[in-house]
Amino acid sequence: MEPEVINLAKQLIQKPSYTPDDAGCQPLLMNRLGGHGFLGEHHRFGEVDNVLIWHGDEPGPALMFLGHTDVVPPGDLAAWTHDPLSAHVEAGVLYGRGVADMKGSVAAMVLAMEKFVGQYPNHRGKVALMLTSDEEGIAHDGVKKFMPLMADKHPFDYCLVGEPSSSKVIGDTVRVGRRGSLHVEIRIKGKQGHVAYPQNAANPVFLAAKAIDEMGGFMWDEGNEDFPPTSFQISNINAGSGVTNIIPGELVITANFRYAPVSSQHSLEQQLQMILDRHQLKHELVWQLSGAPFHCKDENFKEAVAESVFQITGVRPEFNTGGGTSDGRFVAPHGIATMELGPINKTIHQVNECEKISHLVQLENIYLDLIKRLLLK
Amino acid sequence: MEPEVINLAKQLIQKPSYTPDDAGCQPLLMNRLGGHGFLGEHHRFGEVDNVLIWHGDEPGPALMFLGHTDVVPPGDLAAWTHDPLSAHVEAGVLYGRGVADMKGSVAAMVLAMEKFVGQYPNHRGKVALMLTSDEEGIAHDGVKKFMPLMADKHPFDYCLVGEPSSSKVIGDTVRVGRRGSLHVEIRIKGKQGHVAYPQNAANPVFLAAKAIDEMGGFMWDEGNEDFPPTSFQISNINAGSGVTNIIPGELVITANFRYAPVSSQHSLEQQLQMILDRHQLKHELVWQLSGAPFHCKDENFKEAVAESVFQITGVRPEFNTGGGTSDGRFVAPHGIATMELGPINKTIHQVNECEKISHLVQLENIYLDLIKRLLLK
Ligand SMILES: [Zn+2]
Ligand SMILES: [Zn+2]
Repeated sequence: MEPEVINLAKQLIQKPSYTPDDAGCQPLLMNRLGGHGFLGEHHRFGEVDNVLIWHGDEPGPALMFLGHTDVVPPGDLAAWTHDPLSAHVEAGVLYGRGVADMKGSVAAMVLAMEKFVGQYPNHRGKVALMLTSDEEGIAHDGVKKFMPLMADKHPFDYCLVGEPSSSKVIGDTVRVGRRGSLHVEIRIKGKQGHVAYPQNAANPVFLAAKAIDEMGGFMWDEGNEDFPPTSFQISNINAGSGVTNIIPGELVITANFRYAPVSSQHSLEQQLQMILDRHQLKHELVWQLSGAPFHCKDENFKEAVAESVFQITGVRPEFNTGGGTSDGRFVAPHGIATMELGPINKTIHQVNECEKISHLVQLENIYLDLIKRLLLK
Repeated sequence: MEPEVINLAKQLIQKPSYTPDDAGCQPLLMNRLGGHGFLGEHHRFGEVDNVLIWHGDEPGPALMFLGHTDVVPPGDLAAWTHDPLSAHVEAGVLYGRGVADMKGSVAAMVLAMEKFVGQYPNHRGKVALMLTSDEEGIAHDGVKKFMPLMADKHPFDYCLVGEPSSSKVIGDTVRVGRRGSLHVEIRIKGKQGHVAYPQNAANPVFLAAKAIDEMGGFMWDEGNEDFPPTSFQISNINAGSGVTNIIPGELVITANFRYAPVSSQHSLEQQLQMILDRHQLKHELVWQLSGAPFHCKDENFKEAVAESVFQITGVRPEFNTGGGTSDGRFVAPHGIATMELGPINKTIHQVNECEKISHLVQLENIYLDLIKRLLLK
């Protein structure tokens, strides 16, 4: 007999919910929790399903778990030892697309909530689970749109995101924030011409080379105790139409800042502008904020999470802010203390994605301990 | 009554010979010159027509004119004051696609040869016209393939290419060579990764920036009396697949050397390699020689051309090697002294391409004078 959290995780893995298709995951969980007295509200935007499922309307602390039912595509199917949808178990390990990111932690959250409500049907405060099917995709029709609709009706104090934060053992790493993500498109203007007549042209690739070198080594800030220094990476660079005898008239760069809260969109804009001006480059910039940084400074919440982890695993978690963005960026701006704790992230988005059965059981127990710690005290 | 060279130029312009389509130009000229005792040999490679039309089989100097019947497309038709195929004449100027590049000079060459053979039917040596319909295109099935077939049967001493060499007045500039054109594809290797984890990646754009800057300012050679220093231009640069959160694993550059004969493919390869090595860049290079340089050092031929220009126009031509490549690159390697003299190049490849009637008459007279100067002395 397998633990119920594994049974539920398998049911979720067996649904082909490739982003942004929920593939029936949310109805399954809504029905299941509905049987335990939970209420739910579902909104579909475009192809994206979003749901909030909650229990409790008494005054008191309100905790929301946040997860996603969508998964990334399997990649090279032939490279999988077992069908990524088969939820194969071998030697205490559960294999399948999404088991670590993040159907495993969603199952653990559901089990924890069920058990809590079973033991404390008249608890004060509120416990809830928000799910979207648009975290792995462009994330326009997911939590970004859904959270503003729910925020007033359900004012939460705490949010725990189930993203795979753990590194070697469950709970060794807990994210207390995420860096901001800011995109910029840089168009460097030169003068188009024929390679045989360079004197009549100005090659934007050569014009920009020194500035690109400077951008690559620039210290945008020094970070702070929880955040590493802001990093700047060029993701795309393009000039030329493919023909080999034309000096291009324009160089187009797309780049991304991952930035600590000590910087801001405004400060980064100013610094990049300064570099471009110093090299006297004619240019156009288009900025797009993908996610503002967030940083949990609620010591009460941090302490509770750390204690729950320690209680179940004996491990003292390290708080950090590494990794990419997460849907936490759409929650924290509502004044909700937001942290992230989930499975081991070693195999996420890869072939043979897997997580230990014992890890998912630990997560269920940590989540349950945390609900009690926050709502019963 | 218009001069016959204009009449013939109009007939050629009226044929829509957009590269590589000859559109009947070569048969027209072969029939016409056939009526004056010329012989011809035609070869078609793929979609490309090539013809050699010659007169004279006696010992003595052999001069080949070289031209092309194909033209570049008209571009924005609405921007033309008159239909580019209508061969409109206004205020002593002939308008139409190809009049300057180079149906006008082809007509002038034909008229000069006709007149010469009419006056000197038993001349010694040989006078000939080689035409292709693949000069403006990829130039794989034109003179490059045709010349090797003709070179043994018809050993020429001199080649005059009718490309538009003139700048302000006819004959002010004569090309005594062309730079070589050497393409290189440079692949700079980095390590792909996620923008959120730059420590696990190596951005090839940043790795390469200093080297690109150095390439842009590098002195590959100093040129010589007839050639400017070798120039190096990047025509395309690309990294990234379009997604904005991936650090690309590779940067691909295509670049072109326009090089003086004081450099060689080998010397340029060595110098580029040295720059890449100095910046410790992992890379792959693919070289493609588009055209070796050529340089006419035959003082007899240079003197004859200069005298013919001076005789007809009163101008002393400047010898230079500017501009792009031409089909001369496929002739000179056969040991043939090769120069270029043709119409004003100001309007070539543009809308409202045009040339003065008086200029085409001058060209006809210069070409005729040159034939006499080389074959009768
Ligand atoms: Zn995830
Ligand atoms: Zn031409």
